[in-house]
Amino acid sequence: MVAKSDAEEFTDVLAVEEPLEIRLQPDGMPHRPVSITMRTPGHDIELAAGFLFTEGIIKRRADIRDIRHCGPKGRNTSGSECAPEQEAAAKYNTVLVELAEDVEVDLKRLKRNFYTTSSCGVCGKSSIEALRTGVTKLPADKFAIDGDLIHELPQILRRTQSVFKKTGGLHASALFTEKGGIETIREDVGRHNALDKVIGAKFLTGELPAQRSILFVSGRTSFELVQKALMAGIPVMAAVGAPSSLAVELAREYGMTLIGFVRDERFNIYCGKERIRNCKL
Amino acid sequence: MVAKSDAEEFTDVLAVEEPLEIRLQPDGMPHRPVSITMRTPGHDIELAAGFLFTEGIIKRRADIRDIRHCGPKGRNTSGSECAPEQEAAAKYNTVLVELAEDVEVDLKRLKRNFYTTSSCGVCGKSSIEALRTGVTKLPADKFAIDGDLIHELPQILRRTQSVFKKTGGLHASALFTEKGGIETIREDVGRHNALDKVIGAKFLTGELPAQRSILFVSGRTSFELVQKALMAGIPVMAAVGAPSSLAVELAREYGMTLIGFVRDERFNIYCGKERIRNCKL
Repeated sequence: MVAKSDAEEFTDVLAVEEPLEIRLQPDGMPHRPVSITMRTPGHDIELAAGFLFTEGIIKRRADIRDIRHCGPKGRNTSGSECAPEQEAAAKYNTVLVELAEDVEVDLKRLKRNFYTTSSCGVCGKSSIEALRTGVTKLPADKFAIDGDLIHELPQILRRTQSVFKKTGGLHASALFTEKGGIETIREDVGRHNALDKVIGAKFLTGELPAQRSILFVSGRTSFELVQKALMAGIPVMAAVGAPSSLAVELAREYGMTLIGFVRDERFNIYCGKERIRNCKL
Repeated sequence: MVAKSDAEEFTDVLAVEEPLEIRLQPDGMPHRPVSITMRTPGHDIELAAGFLFTEGIIKRRADIRDIRHCGPKGRNTSGSECAPEQEAAAKYNTVLVELAEDVEVDLKRLKRNFYTTSSCGVCGKSSIEALRTGVTKLPADKFAIDGDLIHELPQILRRTQSVFKKTGGLHASALFTEKGGIETIREDVGRHNALDKVIGAKFLTGELPAQRSILFVSGRTSFELVQKALMAGIPVMAAVGAPSSLAVELAREYGMTLIGFVRDERFNIYCGKERIRNCKL
């Protein structure tokens, strides 16, 4: 550590980043890789399930016959042989998802998704329209939460986050109940991964759509994060950082409440303010 | 804006996020899309060039015969027709890169890159080895900078960053000279894009490798960011946030100086401390 006044040598704790390969095996077919993501190891099964669900590849828990760690034996993805000590790592850096008999995978969609880093069209408008196949508009229900709860989210998150405190290097993503209780919290070097892990946990226990949950994320809100949250049916999304223009556009169009800059006892509501009580506007 | 005490309605400035499609046209062949990235419009040509270079698809300025905005006429990527008002947007959300006659593109590499979101192998070790084709070890030269300069980087960056101040929603990436002068600064909703824009600017003016430059980025340092910086031959990389474990491993193996947590008049050197003067360890 180097401060202006002095320097010292010390051991720092780092957030671990390793690649995870997700392989998909439709019934009666060979398995094939569909994605490699740089992630923080842990909750890999949830990450794989969440990723496949939020990308629209699978739709319900029953679509998965089996999901497990399963690395290539002594071979890495570039085809060369792994050293023995790498085999264990390779095993835990691959998740195989076997699909149930009747599940049809839209290989074209799959190709488009991974080819394009899960983005869509080219003009802003068409990228939103392209979602219509996967994302449905949130129901106009009576779900509403207290504005004061939003102010408390960062604090509750910080109390629960473990690795971040030590490394400062992880994104967190958490689902809260309408009373402020934490349902699920996951951390990852990648913010998309952190959200996929949270949604994957809910998906695997059959608790989606999460129609009465509040999503809180540690960073900024992008189009892709809103897209993933919409797939999970989450009505309220809040973030410590700023949303992008397309994130707000998408949230508004699909009826989600989007909140940003939740810090220092303030926050901004970008759309869907009818779900926030006690905020006189 | 909702503070604990009161709420008010106001207009917030958002960081713009729109998709950019990069299309590649090898000599005598039809053009094909190679990537869609969600980016902040502006410096699209640099982004496309930087992306293709840091991913190892092109190697030198002369590989590009022509590079320009060129959208599909009245059709978005999903094949349906654009409304007239979308055509202009579509045009500026597509960059076509025509390659020179003798440039061979490794389509397999290209496929692997985009298929896998530019990650590599599956065991941590192999993902680093897989880079050996594209990244070369930095020369063990005498380039060194003053430790005090590192302390000043955040301040210089903040003075220069424009959109961030207004939106809080952009990542910045900047190249500095060894005396602290800003060579290039770019902002984007995506941190990989911000870095690709910076490297693309240098690439297009034939100024790579940037062997006497310091790279400073606003967020955290991932494996992919170090990989891109190494492609550009940058010897010193510093960040406001934390590096991941694999980022440090990669920087160390390829001889780069990696610095993190540059804030509050302190910073951590993770490897390559021989390039930092006046830091007594």
